[in-house]
Parts: sequence; C-alpha cells; structure tokens
Amino acid sequence: MARMVSASLGAAISLLAFVLLLFLSGPVVAAEPSQATQYCLGCHKSLHPGIVSDWQSSRHARVTPAKALQKDELKRRVSAESVPGDLRNSTVGCAECHTLNPGKHPDTFAHNGKKVHAVVTPEDCAVCHPQEREQFSRNKMSQAYGNLMDNKLYGQLITAVNGVPRVDAEKGVVEEQAPDRLSNEDSCLACHGTRVEYEGTEERSTKLGPQELPVYAGWPNQAVGRINPDGSKGSCSSCHTRHRYSIEMARQPHTCSKCHKGPDVPAYKVYEVSKHGNIFSSSGSEWDLKSVPWTPGEDFAAPTCASCHASLLTGPQGKVIAERTHQMNDRLSERIFGLPYAHPQPQSADTSVIENKAGLPLPTELSGEPASEYLISEKEQEKRRERLQAVCSACHSEQWTRGHFEKLDRTVETSNQLTREATKLMETAWAEGLAQGPGQGGSIADEPLELLWLEQWLFYANSVRFASAMMGADYGVFERGRWHQHKNLREMAEKLRQLRSMNE
Amino acid sequence: MARMVSASLGAAISLLAFVLLLFLSGPVVAAEPSQATQYCLGCHKSLHPGIVSDWQSSRHARVTPAKALQKDELKRRVSAESVPGDLRNSTVGCAECHTLNPGKHPDTFAHNGKKVHAVVTPEDCAVCHPQEREQFSRNKMSQAYGNLMDNKLYGQLITAVNGVPRVDAEKGVVEEQAPDRLSNEDSCLACHGTRVEYEGTEERSTKLGPQELPVYAGWPNQAVGRINPDGSKGSCSSCHTRHRYSIEMARQPHTCSKCHKGPDVPAYKVYEVSKHGNIFSSSGSEWDLKSVPWTPGEDFAAPTCASCHASLLTGPQGKVIAERTHQMNDRLSERIFGLPYAHPQPQSADTSVIENKAGLPLPTELSGEPASEYLISEKEQEKRRERLQAVCSACHSEQWTRGHFEKLDRTVETSNQLTREATKLMETAWAEGLAQGPGQGGSIADEPLELLWLEQWLFYANSVRFASAMMGADYGVFERGRWHQHKNLREMAEKLRQLRSMNE
Amino acid sequence: MARMVSASLGAAISLLAFVLLLFLSGPVVAAEPSQATQYCLGCHKSLHPGIVSDWQSSRHARVTPAKALQKDELKRRVSAESVPGDLRNSTVGCAECHTLNPGKHPDTFAHNGKKVHAVVTPEDCAVCHPQEREQFSRNKMSQAYGNLMDNKLYGQLITAVNGVPRVDAEKGVVEEQAPDRLSNEDSCLACHGTRVEYEGTEERSTKLGPQELPVYAGWPNQAVGRINPDGSKGSCSSCHTRHRYSIEMARQPHTCSKCHKGPDVPAYKVYEVSKHGNIFSSSGSEWDLKSVPWTPGEDFAAPTCASCHASLLTGPQGKVIAERTHQMNDRLSERIFGLPYAHPQPQSADTSVIENKAGLPLPTELSGEPASEYLISEKEQEKRRERLQAVCSACHSEQWTRGHFEKLDRTVETSNQLTREATKLMETAWAEGLAQGPGQGGSIADEPLELLWLEQWLFYANSVRFASAMMGADYGVFERGRWHQHKNLREMAEKLRQLRSMNE
Repeated sequence: MARMVSASLGAAISLLAFVLLLFLSGPVVAAEPSQATQYCLGCHKSLHPGIVSDWQSSRHARVTPAKALQKDELKRRVSAESVPGDLRNSTVGCAECHTLNPGKHPDTFAHNGKKVHAVVTPEDCAVCHPQEREQFSRNKMSQAYGNLMDNKLYGQLITAVNGVPRVDAEKGVVEEQAPDRLSNEDSCLACHGTRVEYEGTEERSTKLGPQELPVYAGWPNQAVGRINPDGSKGSCSSCHTRHRYSIEMARQPHTCSKCHKGPDVPAYKVYEVSKHGNIFSSSGSEWDLKSVPWTPGEDFAAPTCASCHASLLTGPQGKVIAERTHQMNDRLSERIFGLPYAHPQPQSADTSVIENKAGLPLPTELSGEPASEYLISEKEQEKRRERLQAVCSACHSEQWTRGHFEKLDRTVETSNQLTREATKLMETAWAEGLAQGPGQGGSIADEPLELLWLEQWLFYANSVRFASAMMGADYGVFERGRWHQHKNLREMAEKLRQLRSMNE
Repeated sequence: MARMVSASLGAAISLLAFVLLLFLSGPVVAAEPSQATQYCLGCHKSLHPGIVSDWQSSRHARVTPAKALQKDELKRRVSAESVPGDLRNSTVGCAECHTLNPGKHPDTFAHNGKKVHAVVTPEDCAVCHPQEREQFSRNKMSQAYGNLMDNKLYGQLITAVNGVPRVDAEKGVVEEQAPDRLSNEDSCLACHGTRVEYEGTEERSTKLGPQELPVYAGWPNQAVGRINPDGSKGSCSSCHTRHRYSIEMARQPHTCSKCHKGPDVPAYKVYEVSKHGNIFSSSGSEWDLKSVPWTPGEDFAAPTCASCHASLLTGPQGKVIAERTHQMNDRLSERIFGLPYAHPQPQSADTSVIENKAGLPLPTELSGEPASEYLISEKEQEKRRERLQAVCSACHSEQWTRGHFEKLDRTVETSNQLTREATKLMETAWAEGLAQGPGQGGSIADEPLELLWLEQWLFYANSVRFASAMMGADYGVFERGRWHQHKNLREMAEKLRQLRSMNE
Repeated sequence: MARMVSASLGAAISLLAFVLLLFLSGPVVAAEPSQATQYCLGCHKSLHPGIVSDWQSSRHARVTPAKALQKDELKRRVSAESVPGDLRNSTVGCAECHTLNPGKHPDTFAHNGKKVHAVVTPEDCAVCHPQEREQFSRNKMSQAYGNLMDNKLYGQLITAVNGVPRVDAEKGVVEEQAPDRLSNEDSCLACHGTRVEYEGTEERSTKLGPQELPVYAGWPNQAVGRINPDGSKGSCSSCHTRHRYSIEMARQPHTCSKCHKGPDVPAYKVYEVSKHGNIFSSSGSEWDLKSVPWTPGEDFAAPTCASCHASLLTGPQGKVIAERTHQMNDRLSERIFGLPYAHPQPQSADTSVIENKAGLPLPTELSGEPASEYLISEKEQEKRRERLQAVCSACHSEQWTRGHFEKLDRTVETSNQLTREATKLMETAWAEGLAQGPGQGGSIADEPLELLWLEQWLFYANSVRFASAMMGADYGVFERGRWHQHKNLREMAEKLRQLRSMNE
C-alpha cells in the first residue's frame, strides 16, 4: 500500500513540476525578423518556399544576436565581443546577410529599392563569427582553389582529368587538350571552389514579371575554397548548409562526405565501416548534435568527423577536452594525404608557396624526404597529436591510444616505402626516356605508366593510411588498399619491361 | 506577475484545446477488413506473420476506398473516379487484391474454396489507381524487359555477362556460351524484370498439411519491367514495397538504390554524397514523407529521388509546383544514360523499336548523332526541362538553376566527345580487322578492346553525367569519373597498338 | 451528441489508465553498482567519461543478474542457470568484469589496491552467458586468427598484401618481403583478430599522476578471432560494442559492416541495396531492435543480418521460428565464400586442419571437387537450409522461397564453373612454367597472372554469390559481378598468350 501511495505521489509531483515550469518560464517573447527581412519574405516565401522554410527552422530565425551574446563563454555560438546595433535586436534573416557590408561587395545590385548581394561570404558571417573566420583562414581548405590551380604539377593532373583529349586513330595515340572553365568547375572545383565573378545584371523573366538579376561566372558553387566576388575565400555553407546554417548539420559525417569520399580521400567511407561509424549509424539518431559545448558519452556515443577535428568538447563537469577550431589540421600532426608521400602538416594554409629542393611544387622530394622548411616542426607535430589524443582519451585508455598510433605510424612508414618503390620505377622510366616527366618538360599525368604511378599513391597509399587512421580496416586491405598497392606495383614493373622491349 | 498568469493561462488553453479536439473528432469507427480477407488472415497470420504485420501497418489496412475517395483532389491517393461497390466499404486486404479480376489471371488456382492468384499486377492495382498505371505505361521502366531482351546488341552484352564461357587453355582463348534462364533472372532481370509464367499447381507439404500450390517460372521477381502472367507489365511493389505499399517508402531514396547504384547508373551513390543526399541523411528522419501533396521546405528540406522525378509538389499555399507522374522521364529532357551517347529522351517507352541509320538498335549513331525520329523534339525537351526546373526553383534562385544546367549541358557535351574519341579507336580496330564488331557480324562484347570501349561509356561517361546532374562531384572526378575516362582511353589506344603489332 | 460523449469518455479513460499504470508499477528500486565498481567510477568517470556514460546507458548498468535470471525462458538474456553469489545483486560494472577470474588472467596487474585485467574475454562473459560462448566456439569466426595465420597458402596471400616489396628498377622486378607484425595487425588481423600478449607493466604519466599501466602487444583489437592473454579466443565486443554490449547494436547491420563489406565478402554492401536493406534504411529507426525474443513483422519489417543468421525469432503467438545461435553457419548449408570454390560448410570451426587430396590446405580441390571429409554431410546441409528457410517463411510464400534458392543454387554452380575456367588457365601457366605455383614451390600470389586468378574468385565469384544469396542484384552484374568475371577471364587468357610469346 505504501508503495502505491508513493507512486501516485510521484505522479502528482511530476505534474506539479511541469505546470510550475510553464509558469516560471513566462510568456515567450518571440524574436522578430527585421522589417527589411519581412519585406524580402513578402515575395520570396512564395517564390522560393524551400529556402524560406529552411531558414525558418534555423536558429538564426529564432534568436537575436543580443540574446546570443548573453550566453556563458563555453555555450556561446557567436564569437564577436559585440554586434553592430542595427543587427542586434532582430533575428538574422535575409536582409541581415544579403545587404551586409554593401561597400565591400562588387556584386551589390539594386533589387526592389534595396542594395542586395546574392553571394554571402565569410566576411559577412564574420560580423558575428569572427573567430571562426580567423580559424578558417588558417585552414588549408580556405586556400583550396589556389592550392590546386596555382600548382604547376597539379595543373597537369587537371588537364589529364578535365580536358577532352583528341584521338589520332591512325597513329593510335591520344593527344591532351586543355580543359575549359565549366569542366573544371563541374569537376575538381566542385570541391575546391570556383572563382565567382560578377558580370553585371541582366533582365530576366520571373514568376513576378521581368527583373534585373545578377549574372555570375563560377556560380553556383558552395565549396570550401571558393573565391568570392569580394575577394574573400571560402563558403561557410559548405558545412553549415544553407539556409539553416546549423551546427548539427556540420557535425553530421554525411556533410563531410560531399568531398571526402573519393578514392583519393576516402575518409567518409572509412568512417562508415569503422567502429565509430557503426555506432553512429546504429544510434546516432538518438544523440544530441546541437549541444554547445559538446560532451562525449553524454551527448554522443562515438565521434563524428567534427568531434575529432573541430568541435569544442568538454567533460561532464565542464572541463575542456578540446578547444573549438575551424583549422582542420589543428589536431593533426601529419598530412596522411600524400603528395606523393605522407608528411608533416604544411606551415601555411597556402601550399602553393611550397617548393622542394628539386624545384617542384611538392611538400616532399620524389625520394620521400619532406620539404621541411615549409612544414611544421616536430615540436608542433607533437602538440597537435596531443590535442587529438586528448579526444581519444575521453573514451579510450592510455594503452589503447598509444597502441593505435603505433600502428598508424608504422602504416604511414610502410605506405611511404611502397610509394618510394613505385617512384623508383617511374624515375627509371623517365631517366631511360621511356616516359617524359618533369625533368623532361613532360606532364606527370599523360602516359599510361604515369597514371599507374599516380594511382599508386593518390588512391592506394592514401586509402591505406585513411583506413589505418580511422580504423576502417578493409579500405587498407582489399578495397583499394594494400592488395592494390602490390598489384599495381607489379603492373608498373611489367609495363616498364614492356616499354623497354618495345623500345629495343 | 502578469507574466506568470499569462503562462498558466496558456497552459490551460492548450489543455482545453486538446480535450476539445478529442471531443470533436468523434468516436473512431474502425474500418474493417472484408470477411474474405478475415478468412485469409485466419491461416496466414500464423503462416506468414511478417506479411500480415506489414500489411496491418499499411494504409490499405486502415482506410476503405469509400473514405479514400472523399478526399480533396490534391490530397487523394486513389485516382479512380469510383471503385466497384463490393470493394468500397472494407479495407484493402488479402482477398481484395489476390482474388481481383479472376478472369484475367491465367494463374488463378483453387485455394481452400477460393479462386486466388499469387501474382498481383498493375491491372489489379489500377482498379483504384488507374492514372498511376496509365502514367507508368509511358515509363520506359514498364518496358524494361523487352527493351533489354528484344535488342540484338544488348543481347550480346547479356551473353557476355551471364553466359559461362569455356576456356581452351591450350589456345589460350575464351569461348562464349549462351546464358541460361536462371542466370539471366538472377542478373540483368533482377532489375529489368522476368517473364513470370504459370506452370500449374503442384501438391506440396506445408505447416498446415499438403496443399496444391502454384508453380511459376521467373518467380520471385518484383522488378519494374516484369511480364506478368496476365500479360501486363511491371510491378508496383518494386517501389511501393509489399505489403505496406506506402508512398513514404517510394519517396525514400533507399528504395531506388535497389537498381540505381551500379557503375552504369550510379544515381543513388551520387545522391548520397550530393548536398541533397547529405541533408537527407542528416535530417531526413524528421521529415514528413507521408504528406499528400508534398511541400518543399515544409515537409522536407531537400529533395529525394521522388521529389524531382515523380511526386506531386505544392507550395505552402497549395499552388502546384509539379504534377504527380509515374512516367519517370516526364521532367527529363535528356537521357544521360548514354547508349552509347547521351541523347534526347525516346518518344516511346518501348525502345526496342528504335533503329539508327546504320541499322543498329541504338538511339544514336556510333558517331554520336541522335536517331532523332525516335526521340522527343526540342520543344518537348524544353517543356520537360521547365518542369524539372520548377522543382529546383522551390529552393534555388534563377541564377543558381541556370548556372547548374549550363554546367550539366557542357558535361553532357564533353562526355559525349570523349565517348566519340573512344569510339573512333573502336571503329578503327573493327575496320582494320583487329576486332569483330557489328559490321563484321561479331559481338560488341567479346573482345578485350570492346570491353574497354563498353566501360568507357557505360561506366565512366555515365558516372560523369550522373555526378554532374545530381551534384555528387567525386563520381565525376576520381570515383569512376573523368580520371577513368582518360585512363581508359589511353589503355584503349595502347591496346590498339598492341593488336596492330601482334598482327604485323 | 452520443459521439461527443463517447470521445470525451475515451479521453478520460485513457488518463485514468495512465495514472493507474503509474500507481501499480510501484516505486522503482534502483539497481546499484557494487562498491568496487563505485570505486572505479570515482576516477574513471572524469578520466574516460565516454566509457562511463556509454556503460551507464547499458542494460548491464540497470539490471542485476539476480533479476535477469527471473525472466521467462524465451525472454532471458543470460543463459547461465545461476550466477555466483557475489555477482548476483549488484549491476554489472567495471569491477565485475575487469576483476573476474583473476587466476586465469596472466595480465592481471595491481591497480590502486585492486587486481585488475584490462582485456575482458569470452571466458569472463561466459560466467553469465555460457551458451553464447559455447555456440561461438563452434563459429569459424572464433578461429579466425588461426584459420588465416596457420594456413600456408593464405600466408602467401598475407605476404603479398602486407609485406613491403623491394623493386629492382634495373631489372624491372618486384621482390617480396615478409610483412612485420604491426602491418599484419593493421590489415588482415584488424578483422581476424590479433594475438594479444601481455608484456608487463610500465610507469606512465596520466592526468592523475604516474601509474603502473599494462603493456600489450597486439592491442588495441576487438576482432572476432582475437587470441586473448588468457588463451581464450574471440571478443564479444566485436558485435556487442563496448561498453554498452547491447543486443540492439549487434542486430544492426552497420555492426557487421566493420568486416563484411570488402570485395571479398561484400555482404553489407549487398544488403544495403537489397530490398531487405532498403526497408531497413527506410523504416528501421521505427523498429524494436531490443525485444527478446524477436518477432518478424511485429518488431521489425525486414531482416537485418542477425535476423537470418543469429537471433532467436518467434511468431506472434510465441512459437519459435528459429533458435538463437552464435554459430553463424548454423543456418547455412554452403559456404559461398569460395576458397576458391563455394562448398559445403566445414565441419569444424578450425579450418586449418583441412587438407585436400592434393595436399593443399583448401576445402576444395583446384578442380572444384569438395574436400568432403572435412565438410558437413548433405543431410546436415539440408537441416541447416531448412533452418534458414523457416526464417524466410515468416514473410515469404513457399514458392517464393523455393524460387529464390533455385536461383541461388544455379548461381553457385555457374560461378564455380567460371572459377574452374579461370583455374584451368592458371594451371596451364603453372604447368608450362610461365608462373610458379604451389606445385613448383612458388607463392600463389606473387605474379601478375596469379593476382588476376585470385581476383577472379576472391572478388568476383564471391560478389556474384553474395549478390544472389541476399538479392543485391548489381553486385552480381556490373559492380564487381559477372561483368568482371568475364572481363577478367579474358584478361587472364590474354596474359597467358603474352607470357607464352615472351617465352618463345
């Protein structure tokens, strides 16, 4: 009987607590969009209902900067000390972003009596989020356009990939052709970012009659290294997808899959089949991906990409495990994406400045020796690895973490050795005149043996290292892993012998 | 204090509204299955509990056709004007579908005193859903069996894929053999559909004792182009999976993955890594996939396959953005699945009627020129593209959509050019007698150079175009994309030279 | 009016029922962790908050063995008849597992006054779950380490995959090197399991000051075939992921993807695109993956890996459809993972004992003939197939199931035939001295033709069979399926001719 009473008492108390909570929380004073934004919404909610609905479900549509600034340090989502007065007390809507900094935007155009720009840039976002912009500027990704396009050797790869070669069927040969702009934009630059150029306005018919609308080259593109009309670099919406711009989307591994799943960087695929990814797939829908700061174990049961590489993490008592960073290599000692060898992270986000001793724009020599003066020091490497290991330690013992990195280090070493063996074959072919490489003024990517060599490190060695780093075993074994490193090496040797016998 | 009062008042009003809602909705009069269906359930709920439970959670098990017919035009899920009286007032259960149209089903058999057919066909579904059946009959998918099996060239491909060749090890050659029926059914026809043939009944032992049960050839198969015993084509349960037959399942991209993920049509894989797919994976579990009509932004934040290609979409005020269609190319101007080149959509769902000028059953010449008399006009192309772009516009600006299609058009052009270059090499080999092609009475798929040529367009050019159309960049770059187009072209040229030197 | 009354009456009854339920369920007496576990948690909840939180959300942290033992037979999750007294009445926490059986663990070390071992083994789990351990000991997976490492031929494959070959560029040849231990552990053994060896303790600095901590070789590793320091085999946490050890995780197909998704065993990938996988992806988040026993239709709408291969399934009235098993081939008649041919399941979990007539450690001859004395009988095959078909029957008709297996049997046959044709080419090359095989004392995996032969069965024939068995069509057609079987066979024939012409 005492049991029944205590249960019904519990139920009564719960009900009371709930009513009290409602009572104390007070009437909700809805944060309102500015008048300017309401004017935009007037047309756009029927013209582009998807954009508007998406924004309406965003935090931007619910919270004013003034309120966002009141949060405790660790819980803040805006990093500005203060926000300009006219932006402070309305929610963050169309007008706030698309009319901000009008003087800086060469693509500002007159639109129904307002000065508007279509392409919102990190400079605009930085009004409220300056630290994130600053961190991102130290991220290689922010330089992804130039790091690719301003590198002569990578340019040869672009030509090989995006050009439309011509065949001379009589001779049985393939002749390279330079790629056109749209092909580059639909291919490499879809992830590296395009150069978005404003070309003025043009009258076009719309559902609401004729309108002067902007014309851009290089648009659409939402890639991390996009060069914006205002000269800034990057696009926050690559990860914080428009028009919700949420932290939870950026923390979802799916978001990273847009660019990190190919044979060159199979990070997402490796993650999916790793234990971390298995756990995410199995139970991620129950996790709290919104919480700031983010607490391993409490908010999530296994890391997503963001947990290890970007997010502010705290322990259950609020102790910081890892600081927030938008510089993705802030916790990475080595760049396992080998070009052609894995090497210490570059010092500068702009890697187009790198030149190895042989005069090639590569972070290592063809022998594997790192171009150290452009790369971070051992001490800095150690610091970064410790930052990452602090994240591991939230869920793993000291011997677990140490054992994991021991294996990774060995795999970096052996995959580099295999790349070295393949490179010896390639260098031999170049030296013997059986192929035309950089030393002969040729492209590194226009002869069959060269294509095998490129796959050896770009596809196979990279897969092996990503599989090791993130524990997605099979990408390091059969699925583009060690099996293919070996098979390809043998094919290279065979092709070298064939080239020789044909040349005799 | 005023604040506290208003909050508690709000809580009280909410409670009142809830009670009122319950009050007004009236007692729920449960829709009942027919007596015939209850008779079926008597045994089958213990024999095949999975089927029964699945059906029980379906709309068919909850709603009578009479009630379904009462809905407003845009909200209706049945397209019939009326439904035969005996079907009207019970839910749609076992007996309703499996005893319908007994005269039309040659596979009707006596089963515990009833006349039953196991294979329910689009003709049966059309009793309530005639528009869907009619739309689907204009869908190439409904002809997927004949479009493949009645095409002589594709037949050569089937032989190459499904036959069990014999090796003459002494000569070191491989000799083609015709495939058997079961191999075809387990391979190509798993997606294209089998020819299901009734072979009578046979006594078999079951958990409830011996039973006369039907015997079919070509069964099981649930593919879109299945030829049914009643002569009808297709299977609604390909997408509206048995025995729930739900719209939400058909709107899930996973459903399409069953057939659209291979190297020839990597639509699902491209979608997965596209921004649209990222958003679906990240937040799709919160969307309303049931709503009819379906409203972008409100019901879902990014399109699934169905949004762009099939579903009835309306804006927030109920304005129609796109009409429902079960003809999947109703919003598609071009067929980017190249055979061997991308080309305007065929006029007829039955593509086996197509013959190009060279007399080959292909929608283009080997030069790339479209077999225009069998393909839709430019005007029709424009109309279909506009229908698709209306969907884009729900979430994208005019310049966004225009820029996207500009890139896609270029990629269609360049991928066709690359296919043309590869075809030149192939035609040269055929002309020089180094391989035996259609002109020489040979198969297009039984020599190593031909296999490379087939991969050039079937795998690589198609991947590049799907990646462009649906923005899954890497499938257009390294993952079976441009990289492989180029590498393969060079391998073809090399093999041509080898064939020549071996023939000298 | 009667209608309104009945509705409000219904609402009132619901409320009453809810209150009554609360009332009757009584006060919850929280199950408590032992004092020893509380001592562990004192430090570890701040040192490794992720582990602790994960455990806290586990059933182990909520239920005492005493309570678990009270459940009805079919609902029990512990299989022990009884549990030692000191473990019975507290929840299952750190101390319960990590201090269990101290005498059996050579890696027991002194840790803050306790005797602790880091590596918990199936012997520990068997205190409460002895049947599962016993079943698992009959699972080939439990022998995965030895089955790979103690097989001479597979050892040649390991060398080819994990060694770092040296290139002699002058000769244009590749020279094999034996792999090191860490490379094996990061590659094959990541799934097969490592040999975990205790190497004593070492003082290391931790957040709580210097500590004597254990040092292991072969750690970390959570693979099914792990050799533990106590001599036992396996790791329950491979599937019941630490530190939640849940049944629902083990029932998620993602869990199996860790090891079953590569080109050799693409089970997970095939599942994903099968109708079963489509349904799981589309609606799995609504299923009950926790329920014991597990009821098709009620608890889940389509099978996951566990449904078909492991779980205890019952019908809606509690009738057993399939008994629980941790011997994964208990419902499998054939091993479609061909080595090199599909064959009846081995009799013993330890396959390293198998020797075919030719003296090779393979379950078939190179001709395809099974090494029958090591394999299960036809009768046993039939029994196992019937067990699996009982699962199919929960959702499929007799003719459906029969038709499915008819196709699978044919595909097993034809894929074996294709392997036979490829093997003829390989044997011819060995016989003619164009490659050095087992008969010549050579490796089976160090020459280009051999690598093609290995891919023929390890990648392509296996993919075709998995695609057939689990209905993921395209893995049997273009995506590593029949297309590649045929293309590869032609490449083998071509290479054989080249080898001959080079040798003339």
